[in-house]
This record gives sequence, C-alpha cells and structure tokens, in this order.
Amino acid sequence: MTYISNEQLDNFHHLYRINLINSCSGYKSANLLGTKSSRGIENVAVFSSVTHIGSNPPMLGFFCRPTTVLRNTYENIKSTGYYTINHIHNSILEDAHHTSAKYDAGISEFDKTNLSSEYKTEFQAPFVKDAPIQLAMEYIEEYHIKANDTILVIGKIIGLHVNDNLLEDDGFINLSKAQVATINGLDGYAVPELKTRFDYQRPKK
Amino acid sequence: MTYISNEQLDNFHHLYRINLINSCSGYKSANLLGTKSSRGIENVAVFSSVTHIGSNPPMLGFFCRPTTVLRNTYENIKSTGYYTINHIHNSILEDAHHTSAKYDAGISEFDKTNLSSEYKTEFQAPFVKDAPIQLAMEYIEEYHIKANDTILVIGKIIGLHVNDNLLEDDGFINLSKAQVATINGLDGYAVPELKTRFDYQRPKK
Repeated sequence: MTYISNEQLDNFHHLYRINLINSCSGYKSANLLGTKSSRGIENVAVFSSVTHIGSNPPMLGFFCRPTTVLRNTYENIKSTGYYTINHIHNSILEDAHHTSAKYDAGISEFDKTNLSSEYKTEFQAPFVKDAPIQLAMEYIEEYHIKANDTILVIGKIIGLHVNDNLLEDDGFINLSKAQVATINGLDGYAVPELKTRFDYQRPKK
Repeated sequence: MTYISNEQLDNFHHLYRINLINSCSGYKSANLLGTKSSRGIENVAVFSSVTHIGSNPPMLGFFCRPTTVLRNTYENIKSTGYYTINHIHNSILEDAHHTSAKYDAGISEFDKTNLSSEYKTEFQAPFVKDAPIQLAMEYIEEYHIKANDTILVIGKIIGLHVNDNLLEDDGFINLSKAQVATINGLDGYAVPELKTRFDYQRPKK
C-alpha cells in the first residue's frame, strides 16, 4: 500500500490534493438541489454531501462553503426557507455535473442545460423534472463548522415524491431500479446495481 | 409517482419509516470505524454517514446518536482522540454489516467476525486489515445537533493508506477498482463500477 502522511499532503499540488481528499471517504450521494431566489430566479446545483441525520423527525443535512458558487443555493434557502433534493440518474449525468459551473446568481442553470424545473403540491421551490426521487425540504437550522469555515445546513423532509416501482413493501427505496448515480471524488460517477440486503443483526452467542 | 406527505410519514410503522427515510437521500459511504477503548478493548462498527468536509485541512465528519450501540465508537474516540476509517469492500460485506449488532462494550467485533485488526505507522487505533483504503483520523471537534439530539464528529486525516493500483496520476482514488461498496438505506449494499469522469465545468457562453 502507498502511505501518504499529513506532511506529504501539505506539499501536494492543490488539484492533486482535492482529488485525493474528495475521493478518500468513499462513495457519495449525487443530488441536485433546487431553489428559487426571492427575485424569482431558479437555481439548481449538484451536491455530493447530502447525509441522513435522522428518521424521526425526518431530517437530512448538507455542507456548503459560503465563499463558492454554491452560495446561490445557500442564499436562496436562507431567504425563502425551502429547497428540493432531487436524485441524479443515468440519463442526466452530464447536465447534472454541468451545474457545478460558476454561473452568476442572475442566470438559471435550468436555462443552460436540458434539465427542466417542475412545481407541484403547492411547494414553492423547483423540483427537477423526471428525477426518480424528489424531496420537498424545509430549512431548520445550521451550524458553522469552525475547523474549516463551512456550514452544515439541516432541513426537514416535508414531502417525498418517489417513482412507483422503487418503493418496496417495507419502505425501502430501491435506488438501483431508477439508475440513481453515486459520486466518486469530484467528478467520477457510477450507477450501482443493488447486490444484497442483509437482515437486522443481533449479537452471536 | 407516489407522494408521501409529512402527515403520512408520522403515521407509518416505525420500521417502514426508518427504511424509507434512510434510503431516500441517495447512496451512502460504507465504512468501518476502528477504535480502542482506554481499557484496550478494540471496537469496529459500520457507519454510512462519513462525509467530506474539506480538503485543506483534510477533514471528514460523521454523525452518531449518543444513545445507541454506536456509543462505543464515540466514547473511544472521546477518550483516546484517535480512530480509523476503513472502506467496506466486496469480500467483507457480511462481516462488515454484522458489526451493526449491539455488542457490549467489553466485547470486540473483531472477535465475533472474520475481520482482523492491524496496527501500523505507530498509530494507536486499529485499522481493518485488508481494507483497500485506511485512514488515520484525529478527533478535532463536535457539534450537538439540536433538532434531533445527534452529534456531528469532525476529524482530521493525519495519514492515508491506499492500495497502490487505486491511485491515479491526478490524485483520484478509483474506488471501483477495489470493489468498494456503497449503502442503500439501512441494509442494502452495492458494489459500483466507475462509469465516467467529467472535466472541470465552466459556464457556457
């Protein structure tokens, strides 16, 4: 195995370092966050840090860096209180990834890609049309991460739209049936196939 | 599409609800966290919430619930300051998932499974032997998430062990070459194959 120490990390080229650290934690979720500004401009942006926080109440978190392009998403959530989480799937990989480009706040990524917005259930933030799973989210609270000046945003799921064929009898959403993607690093995409589900584990005697 | 409102969520059976909410955010990382108690007892436990926080300094976070089995991991990290993050891969899926069983703090999951511990580079916490990626982590800080009484633990990467064939010229770690797993929900596992990497995206003219 190759061993890379903290001292070596400090001396790597910036791009080598971000590729390495972004890919070392394992596979990440692949989501498009949909928002609308208080001026009515839609925004959609790729995020790979959406994480389960708890089921009761149903809450998800994501991390953002206030000084980057992702600010549009954060500012829109702060000013309106609502956003959507939509799953990236096999047919939209390229357009989804393109939303990482740094467009000005006055330009909507929906106009620069083949992604379309969709409104339903009287929810004010735009969903991504044809995404197999669409979550309506309400902003709850945030935490400033002192160690590197990022923000953890926590939201509550207030509604789920799920393609009918994905939902199994016990509530499990089969992501692979919808060809949902996962992210490796900053720019690698895979479309996994479910291999197995295990039973609830109890201690061996 | 099926629409599930927040009100419906409240009325679902507990197990249906946790399956649904745990699988609705997309694919998750599949890691084994290795720790040792101050009394010298090794612990290894599956986590699906390890998330990239930042590259400089190199930091990862994970969420834990102080009132569950995962407490052993948390308490060991708090008392020693160190832990390891190891990737779950195709050959150890069943043993890795079994570490979710609720063993007493005096029993090591390394003794109840075919997983073996390994020590190297004078690091005090146990790595999982044969894991293709092994990270040496130092506890930095934690945040109490008020909304549901969980804890976000943030650690700094102080060293990476990576199988030689996974590391590409630009620092990208190719997870699929090591058959690293990803988690769907609470108990579903997939072993993805990398489909594509995209270029850095700039705004279209």
